[in-house]
Amino acid sequence: MLKPLGDRVVIELVETEEKTASGIVLPDSAKEKPQEGKVVAVGNGRVLDSGERVAPEVAEGDRIIFSKYAGTEVKYEGRELLILRESDILAVTGQ
Amino acid sequence: MLKPLGDRVVIELVETEEKTASGIVLPDSAKEKPQEGKVVAVGNGRVLDSGERVAPEVAEGDRIIFSKYAGTEVKYEGRELLILRESDILAVTGQ
Amino acid sequence: MLKPLGDRVVIELVETEEKTASGIVLPDSAKEKPQEGKVVAVGNGRVLDSGERVAPEVAEGDRIIFSKYAGTEVKYEGRELLILRESDILAVTGQ
Amino acid sequence: MLKPLGDRVVIELVETEEKTASGIVLPDSAKEKPQEGKVVAVGNGRVLDSGERVAPEVAEGDRIIFSKYAGTEVKYEGRELLILRESDILAVTGQ
Amino acid sequence: MLKPLGDRVVIELVETEEKTASGIVLPDSAKEKPQEGKVVAVGNGRVLDSGERVAPEVAEGDRIIFSKYAGTEVKYEGRELLILRESDILAVTGQ
Amino acid sequence: MLKPLGDRVVIELVETEEKTASGIVLPDSAKEKPQEGKVVAVGNGRVLDSGERVAPEVAEGDRIIFSKYAGTEVKYEGRELLILRESDILAVTGQ
Amino acid sequence: MLKPLGDRVVIELVETEEKTASGIVLPDSAKEKPQEGKVVAVGNGRVLDSGERVAPEVAEGDRIIFSKYAGTEVKYEGRELLILRESDILAVTGQ
Repeated sequence: MLKPLGDRVVIELVETEEKTASGIVLPDSAKEKPQEGKVVAVGNGRVLDSGERVAPEVAEGDRIIFSKYAGTEVKYEGRELLILRESDILAVTGQ
Repeated sequence: MLKPLGDRVVIELVETEEKTASGIVLPDSAKEKPQEGKVVAVGNGRVLDSGERVAPEVAEGDRIIFSKYAGTEVKYEGRELLILRESDILAVTGQ
Repeated sequence: MLKPLGDRVVIELVETEEKTASGIVLPDSAKEKPQEGKVVAVGNGRVLDSGERVAPEVAEGDRIIFSKYAGTEVKYEGRELLILRESDILAVTGQ
Repeated sequence: MLKPLGDRVVIELVETEEKTASGIVLPDSAKEKPQEGKVVAVGNGRVLDSGERVAPEVAEGDRIIFSKYAGTEVKYEGRELLILRESDILAVTGQ
Repeated sequence: MLKPLGDRVVIELVETEEKTASGIVLPDSAKEKPQEGKVVAVGNGRVLDSGERVAPEVAEGDRIIFSKYAGTEVKYEGRELLILRESDILAVTGQ
Repeated sequence: MLKPLGDRVVIELVETEEKTASGIVLPDSAKEKPQEGKVVAVGNGRVLDSGERVAPEVAEGDRIIFSKYAGTEVKYEGRELLILRESDILAVTGQ
Repeated sequence: MLKPLGDRVVIELVETEEKTASGIVLPDSAKEKPQEGKVVAVGNGRVLDSGERVAPEVAEGDRIIFSKYAGTEVKYEGRELLILRESDILAVTGQ
């Protein structure tokens, strides 16, 4: 069991050889570069001041790109995972 | 598939020769200079504290100018793209 | 077409000789000095947390004074323009 | 015409000889010292997140004291004026 | 007339000999020390985002203690006064 | 009388010998350490943007632990007291 | 009795030998590393601007991972505990 809290999302990093398959190649430049991952678990979403909880826009299994330096690394049952906030996820690239 | 999250927008940079066509020329000065782009994909918009989601003011295909140092570069299916927040977009210059 | 987004406003700078006509003369002092301009285009206004959009207080054609270092310069169809946030505008000095 | 925007207020500085008349004398100390002025024009007030506009607490003609380093100087029709935010005004000292 | 704006309060400093009477003695330590005063005038209170104005918790004549470095000094009709925000007042010590 | 304003709470420090009795011993480490106290007086609570006042979670007589460097010292009727914000209180340890 | 206030949670650290049992192993890298703990006590939750209190997502007995440098250490009845904010908890790993 690995259930992230609030607007957090658990991600498994996608290796470089997989990146070619999905069509994402990171350019060589000085700008901040995103990384690719796959969603493993999703929190219940953040709570607004109105009391409403915002449903996350990502779901388990989604392929995503996210800000490179975001998140906290954990190893869980032998897998290297990353716990991010949903706001660190830039885009969904596939399911 | 490249679906940006929340108030994010995916942009394709517009090269300098195209800029002449649309009439935008950047002046030589010390002030921050904007850049021109074309909208490729648009997120669902940001969620307000009231729970309401704000519909983006830009749409796919819009020509825009945006803050030069904003965003994150990605290469996707051979195209150089940039993922911005809608608030980094200054103005729409055409469709 | 040059449609600013949100609470942004497009301004054309008013030259010093025009300033005399409208009666605004900037004093010689160490304080931050404002500049005079004319409104060329106005965004739809910013969105409040309640979901309401605030109608801008300036309109196309208004003469305004604004904070000197505010905004982003663009050249558009040969004109030197500045894109500001409405909150950088201090006062309307005429229509 | 000099109509300040939002919660801004236009002030005319009150000279030292007038200060004696109204009873305000600034002490010699290291603390920040306020200055005295007279309200020349008042904006429509700031807009709250609820969409409501807050009516300003000062009116044209009010004598006020304000934070010394606040505001932006302008000369308008030969008068030296200052554009402040209403929140830089500490107190009303007379009408 | 000295009417503070918003959540501001006008205070008259209470001298050291009076402090003994009310029982407040400031300890000799490195921590920030409060000072004692008497409320001379009270603003209408701050406006919440809901549009509601919060009634001040202090009234004219209240003895209070406040953060030592807070506020702006003014001399008014020969009295040394201080204009504070109500949030700089720590506690009421008497009426 | 010593009535704290808003979300403030007046605390009396609990000496080290009393700490043993209640079971709290502070460890020797580089982390921020809390201190133990007893609630002497409680404010009316902070006001939310909705206009509602939040009832404090502590009451007179509660034993509490709080952030060590928080608050302002006062001596009142011979007692050494501390005025804190309720948010500086970590937990209640007894009544 | 050790009742944390608001959105605070009391945690007991889980030693390294227990980590192996639950499957969490922290990788050797430069990124911020989380730590594992067990929830001992939970506050009533934070209060939103709407006046609503958000029910905590963790409960007594939950196994959790949290940001390594978060919280305040206390020793209580011989146990080494940590008082965190719920937002410092990354995920629940078991009950």
